[in-house]
Amino acid sequence: MNSQEREKLNGRKIAILAMDGFEQSELFEPLEAMKAQGAICHIISLKSGEIKAWHEGNWGKTISVDRTLDEADANDYNALFIPGGVINPDKLRNEESALRFTKAFFGQKKPVASICHGPQVLISAKVVEGRKMTSYPSIRIDLENAGANFKDQEVVVDDGLVTSRSPEDLPAFIDKLIEEVAEGKHEEQHA
Amino acid sequence: MNSQEREKLNGRKIAILAMDGFEQSELFEPLEAMKAQGAICHIISLKSGEIKAWHEGNWGKTISVDRTLDEADANDYNALFIPGGVINPDKLRNEESALRFTKAFFGQKKPVASICHGPQVLISAKVVEGRKMTSYPSIRIDLENAGANFKDQEVVVDDGLVTSRSPEDLPAFIDKLIEEVAEGKHEEQHA
Repeated sequence: MNSQEREKLNGRKIAILAMDGFEQSELFEPLEAMKAQGAICHIISLKSGEIKAWHEGNWGKTISVDRTLDEADANDYNALFIPGGVINPDKLRNEESALRFTKAFFGQKKPVASICHGPQVLISAKVVEGRKMTSYPSIRIDLENAGANFKDQEVVVDDGLVTSRSPEDLPAFIDKLIEEVAEGKHEEQHA
Repeated sequence: MNSQEREKLNGRKIAILAMDGFEQSELFEPLEAMKAQGAICHIISLKSGEIKAWHEGNWGKTISVDRTLDEADANDYNALFIPGGVINPDKLRNEESALRFTKAFFGQKKPVASICHGPQVLISAKVVEGRKMTSYPSIRIDLENAGANFKDQEVVVDDGLVTSRSPEDLPAFIDKLIEEVAEGKHEEQHA
């Protein structure tokens, strides 16, 4: 078996959209897993420099931003990943640039994965209607009111859209995230 | 003018429902204003002991909890106030005890005031449909999807329900909060 066969995401470019307050494990664990499969991952944010994680009730590690939303183009990426945290998606969903960027992946039929409170961004981007999804329980009602078909499962896959509930679901989430990104475009994914 | 004429809320009992991560100014400023008008204010929370404010991007002051939700009864209070902060309402809306307590005030036709992200609790308590309201802009879509009639104004008053957008709106919010609580029950307020 050569290295290309082993690396499920060899050369795939992944946009990780995040802001201060992302849940530390929910960004770093998928990031490391995708890199281990050969993916090129870029941190995309509302600001340049670094963004800060949230970890066990306080600020945690930082990570460098690779592209601001002004510099980033969805056309350059094969997939989008939005981690959770309570503060992170609240900041992202309040900015049109983040919503346009997110919506573009759905329009381009590319895989999108999100966990915990990350799906709040998908509500604001108006891409959840009729989709099978899950999330952190506190925002379930918001997803349902937005027309999503909510499932209380560790991971829900719906034609290129991968969602999970919380850090406890990370192993199942990462498996499905890698599988869907490896498959490439999904014709049923839509804006 | 005697002291009773000066104190608009003389003897009124106000339940302030909050958890760690409440926006510091949004709890303390209305609290001080209501106490200055003669109100008796109780901090009601999911836990006993103290809860911590959020202030300028970090943890702030603490305040003592007067009653846990297990101990508190809406019948003992004249009005409910739920401050904002991003973390605070997310914790409250995830607990049935907080939603039952909140809904009871609407059922008892008592004034309810909330600011910033506080209305997330009202969405989860299912009391926003058809109500004129405002909130922090990031959750506007969630209020609209829940059936609220959203207004982008510094303060919105709808038959005993008082809402505002952010700490900048506190002066207008506090004026209307005190006015609505002073008026007492509102027949159009409903669960």
